Amino acid sequence: MESKKRRGILERLNAGEVIVGDGGYVMQLERRGYVKAGHWTPEAAVEHPEAVRQLHREFLRAGANVIQTFTFYCSEDKLEISGNVPNITGAQINEAACDLAREVANEGGALVAGCVSKTPCYVTSHSETEVKAIFKKQMDDFLKKDIDFFIVEFVDHVEEAVWAVEVLKTSGKTVGATLCISPHGDMKGVPPGECAVRLVKAGADIVGINCHLDPMTCVRTVKLMKEGLEKAGLKAHLMVQPLGFHTPECNLGGYTSLPEYPFALETRAITRWDIHKYAREAYNAGIRYIGGCCGFEPYHIRAIAEELAAERGFLPPASEKHGLWGAALEMHTKPWVRARARREYWENLLPASGRPKCPSMATPADE
Amino acid sequence: MESKKRRGILERLNAGEVIVGDGGYVMQLERRGYVKAGHWTPEAAVEHPEAVRQLHREFLRAGANVIQTFTFYCSEDKLEISGNVPNITGAQINEAACDLAREVANEGGALVAGCVSKTPCYVTSHSETEVKAIFKKQMDDFLKKDIDFFIVEFVDHVEEAVWAVEVLKTSGKTVGATLCISPHGDMKGVPPGECAVRLVKAGADIVGINCHLDPMTCVRTVKLMKEGLEKAGLKAHLMVQPLGFHTPECNLGGYTSLPEYPFALETRAITRWDIHKYAREAYNAGIRYIGGCCGFEPYHIRAIAEELAAERGFLPPASEKHGLWGAALEMHTKPWVRARARREYWENLLPASGRPKCPSMATPADE
Amino acid sequence: MESKKRRGILERLNAGEVIVGDGGYVMQLERRGYVKAGHWTPEAAVEHPEAVRQLHREFLRAGANVIQTFTFYCSEDKLEISGNVPNITGAQINEAACDLAREVANEGGALVAGCVSKTPCYVTSHSETEVKAIFKKQMDDFLKKDIDFFIVEFVDHVEEAVWAVEVLKTSGKTVGATLCISPHGDMKGVPPGECAVRLVKAGADIVGINCHLDPMTCVRTVKLMKEGLEKAGLKAHLMVQPLGFHTPECNLGGYTSLPEYPFALETRAITRWDIHKYAREAYNAGIRYIGGCCGFEPYHIRAIAEELAAERGFLPPASEKHGLWGAALEMHTKPWVRARARREYWENLLPASGRPKCPSMATPADE
Amino acid sequence: MESKKRRGILERLNAGEVIVGDGGYVMQLERRGYVKAGHWTPEAAVEHPEAVRQLHREFLRAGANVIQTFTFYCSEDKLEISGNVPNITGAQINEAACDLAREVANEGGALVAGCVSKTPCYVTSHSETEVKAIFKKQMDDFLKKDIDFFIVEFVDHVEEAVWAVEVLKTSGKTVGATLCISPHGDMKGVPPGECAVRLVKAGADIVGINCHLDPMTCVRTVKLMKEGLEKAGLKAHLMVQPLGFHTPECNLGGYTSLPEYPFALETRAITRWDIHKYAREAYNAGIRYIGGCCGFEPYHIRAIAEELAAERGFLPPASEKHGLWGAALEMHTKPWVRARARREYWENLLPASGRPKCPSMATPADE
Repeated sequence: MESKKRRGILERLNAGEVIVGDGGYVMQLERRGYVKAGHWTPEAAVEHPEAVRQLHREFLRAGANVIQTFTFYCSEDKLEISGNVPNITGAQINEAACDLAREVANEGGALVAGCVSKTPCYVTSHSETEVKAIFKKQMDDFLKKDIDFFIVEFVDHVEEAVWAVEVLKTSGKTVGATLCISPHGDMKGVPPGECAVRLVKAGADIVGINCHLDPMTCVRTVKLMKEGLEKAGLKAHLMVQPLGFHTPECNLGGYTSLPEYPFALETRAITRWDIHKYAREAYNAGIRYIGGCCGFEPYHIRAIAEELAAERGFLPPASEKHGLWGAALEMHTKPWVRARARREYWENLLPASGRPKCPSMATPADE
Repeated sequence: MESKKRRGILERLNAGEVIVGDGGYVMQLERRGYVKAGHWTPEAAVEHPEAVRQLHREFLRAGANVIQTFTFYCSEDKLEISGNVPNITGAQINEAACDLAREVANEGGALVAGCVSKTPCYVTSHSETEVKAIFKKQMDDFLKKDIDFFIVEFVDHVEEAVWAVEVLKTSGKTVGATLCISPHGDMKGVPPGECAVRLVKAGADIVGINCHLDPMTCVRTVKLMKEGLEKAGLKAHLMVQPLGFHTPECNLGGYTSLPEYPFALETRAITRWDIHKYAREAYNAGIRYIGGCCGFEPYHIRAIAEELAAERGFLPPASEKHGLWGAALEMHTKPWVRARARREYWENLLPASGRPKCPSMATPADE
Repeated sequence: MESKKRRGILERLNAGEVIVGDGGYVMQLERRGYVKAGHWTPEAAVEHPEAVRQLHREFLRAGANVIQTFTFYCSEDKLEISGNVPNITGAQINEAACDLAREVANEGGALVAGCVSKTPCYVTSHSETEVKAIFKKQMDDFLKKDIDFFIVEFVDHVEEAVWAVEVLKTSGKTVGATLCISPHGDMKGVPPGECAVRLVKAGADIVGINCHLDPMTCVRTVKLMKEGLEKAGLKAHLMVQPLGFHTPECNLGGYTSLPEYPFALETRAITRWDIHKYAREAYNAGIRYIGGCCGFEPYHIRAIAEELAAERGFLPPASEKHGLWGAALEMHTKPWVRARARREYWENLLPASGRPKCPSMATPADE
Repeated sequence: MESKKRRGILERLNAGEVIVGDGGYVMQLERRGYVKAGHWTPEAAVEHPEAVRQLHREFLRAGANVIQTFTFYCSEDKLEISGNVPNITGAQINEAACDLAREVANEGGALVAGCVSKTPCYVTSHSETEVKAIFKKQMDDFLKKDIDFFIVEFVDHVEEAVWAVEVLKTSGKTVGATLCISPHGDMKGVPPGECAVRLVKAGADIVGINCHLDPMTCVRTVKLMKEGLEKAGLKAHLMVQPLGFHTPECNLGGYTSLPEYPFALETRAITRWDIHKYAREAYNAGIRYIGGCCGFEPYHIRAIAEELAAERGFLPPASEKHGLWGAALEMHTKPWVRARARREYWENLLPASGRPKCPSMATPADE
């Protein structure tokens, strides 16, 4: 069987490989017309598989080594609350999503990660039994299919993430866990270093940060996790999958506290050149699983793969359609555009917003 | 045959219908990994038809009544210069693109427009015979396939556009012609009003503006075209397919003169709420073919269709996944996000750039 | 008598001299605590002569060749409306102001200009007889004292300015007339070129623009005046005394339409380096009377004198306390400050606002 | 003698009075043409006493209870290095400055503070003996004249400030000591709390912060000083005299590290409305000596006095020429300006920079 021959995620990370993650699904598919903002549920895996498949493929082509199942918020309690998909069960979505991820992953030797995210149940019930039952149900859906490992993501209370890890580890599979927290810690104020320690003690093989804050801030938080692990004498691989938006003024609550969330974030979008700096910073911090979350489009993932091409030894397929550092502008008809065909130009550019009546920072709602 | 029964573009416009155009292909497919910036040629129609098909489908789903063939810059002289696709002929791309557009258009009762754009030959040779031969060749490719009408687009010298119209009108099909010029006129300084007159006299049934400048500026230029036609006692339908970027400081040369072109335009991206204002302004100006160009993603096209839903009598399919004016935020867990589930909020928001070290306007290279 | 030996303003301008004007009084004295914003009346000439004298002296020291009497809005009708100074008559203020200006002018060989500005009467009565009577009364106050010439300033209807010129010319003295209008023309839409023609035909010896808009815009308007005069075959000297604020978004109404007027204009203040560009631009446009209005502090006037030092043949007294182009930073203890002791640094600096939550442009109230 | 009857600074502070300080001299007099930037020495006290006297008077009129002698950088070693005033001794300047301050202070019942600032000698020699000798010499100049108390200001190493306090306390007079440091501490990293403790132990009666950073940041640093004193069981009065500029991105080095220092700081200038917030914040923090430093003009000092008018029981003289919260705009001719005659308008205004090509934050040189 194919999956038997694949080298697993831990095997690769242990060998020192750089793993490129994929980008964000829900926000990109919202813009493509398949996900409802506010609900953010992944029924498109059943309703419009061609749209999900195509986005998987674009991330794969951009260099992703892991295809995450499109199963965000796909716990039964969340689906019920959103009321968005009365005729489709969570199990149907989870299974369809696994098939789509596997189909595309196989096109390029990528791994499939089954993904679980935070449950509404945690905040309302705070019951370990109930929350764990929800994670167990979703895990069982995944285990019917051919997935390689698990990722717990977008959890802002470390306690809930610990419960998820404990459930998923019962499968015997590798588990990565990323919190969506700031350098100040989780929603209860548990500092990143302690969060990392708790997750590793619960069994997580890979720990890190995803979503909620911009790339450089997320790298900073992962560094705090690393320091916490080192102080505790623990070891784990590190991963980071940040927002593809600039959020310099954000606090604990992350980008949902920004006035622009979720329908006017365009102006904060990161460029491919921002990604080069991020990928390098993450690599230098010792992080070896480097991807993206909301706002990361295929070309951002390609930029990670291009920045780390020397370390990885190859370029991704989509680089066939990309001159490194603007090189393909050399043949432009206008001399001033040709002058942009070089690294220094793009590295130093301070892009204008084109919006003179708008500020450069907002006041977060949680300030 | 299917095409016989379809009501044509002129029939619809004459009946007073609002036609929603599709969005931009090359820049969006560049970000998805299938088009090389700097070359901007459409070989993906042959190399990766699934990617082109998916984007067509997203625009259709967003409400587009017309699917434009993905044949930008697909003249033999341009393909040769770019040197990007040694093994594929322009005819192959043109024909594949027609098939893809037709396949998707048929899924939703849309029309297919065969598109030609400016030729490098015009500037280098300035020969009417040579330029017309190039347009003739591309037209012949299209005529082998089932297209509904032609669009000449992205031409910045009215003379070249007139030549294109003259060639395409020999087919007997409807021809729309859009220039990529500013309110100051074409590259030779011919004012928009006079450009419109020349195009209509050459046989164009629909005239207008596409690309190069932001939505409100393009609408302003189309108004000048309308005034020119009225003064000349001529009649034609009006269309507009602007950039999806804010370009307040641009001059004649349009956005290619901005320092951010083409790899750092993110921050200038328009929001869906900007689109509502644009669609209303275009409609009020008497424009009835309203679409987008570079920077217009599927959700921007959906916003046109949503703004004009009352006038058109229906919402597009993709509105199933979109609460109007943020309505779906009503169920968000955070009270401050719920407070955003209303039109006034989004209409009045001045989105922050998140980039305090960047300016809000740049100095165009042609200033 | 001293005034007999002085070379007059026309004599100097006819000889090709560059005349440096003084800066703005009311706004600067508001900040110093002697003028009430909203009223803007000049009773300080009587109440606090030492404050007015000191500001005159600072402008003189900065290089001003003309000291304008501090008589802004000092017509009886305006003083009555403002109700600010029940015990002081307009005549008292006018006469005290003349004495102060003369005292300081004599310290440095400068000329004294008696200044009249627009009357509330013009808009309410629109009576030529009444308005002219007001100007006559103010002129008679001035003629009791030793002034060299007259300046009509801050008038936004050319008709009122023409009336003022007609009155003042009966004195036999030289008259300069500056409108506070934009390139679009006066409040009735009379274009700058035609305004200039009317003023010169009424007898103005010097025409130009003051206040309401930023330096570069005012120079542009003066150029339009010059073109109008040339077309009409008329000759006159040109003068410009713009705002010391950046107002890129202003329309007809000028800076009073900006949300920041009058108590939050700080952030728009021009630097001395902006002044260098302005002075050069004004000189190149053929303007030979170059000064400032609201927002121009002594160091801005010095910057005019420094930019045009080669043309004028000397530096002003206050340059003793100013290293040209930052030269005096050469001995700073910090190396990065020393690196700023050169022209290129200051010419190319794009100063940050320090206000990330504020926009870079506002929406004028008259838009 | 007058000074015997005056209630001293400690007497007033002990009685719970709010003391309003004066504003910045060197930067304001640079703009008026009397101080050379880069040198920043106060020879104007001898060369142009009328200019210094007038600025003293404006601060007094704005509400200042203390007139500081214009003796910044007036130690012999600094004067020699700057080479700016070959014919004038430090003693001459110090004595002239005392006379000017006394003359104006007597016009309004204000106190005179003799001011010393950091010496170049400290960094080059690091010799306690030499540095103390310099402070002793300057103190002796002051003691020949009628001053009320001493202020040590603009010192960024707490050690040097301690030496100054130790010298000045030998006079038997009250001593206030303000460091120009950030919340991160002095140039050696000594935290603000510990700095305060050392100063009070050395004999300082009042401690606080001046210059280098914006008002809110300076208040924050004084709060840290207060906490340090409380923890140490020490008591002292608190004072704050911050920059009149927005410096949100500054680090340890303060505003001299900003690219705009010292000749393009205009755009960062605080408004009178910013001052209201600052004065309230300072008062709420328990600070009772509230003034300003570089960038504070007379109207900024008036705004402190107006914000705290209820607490102090009176308005300053210059409020005769100021409608509170814009009240005097009520009679403006334009309705939109009349609409600004209210507190809510000015409190909530986000002033535009008028500079769309400039950023809102810079990168400090010490970053």
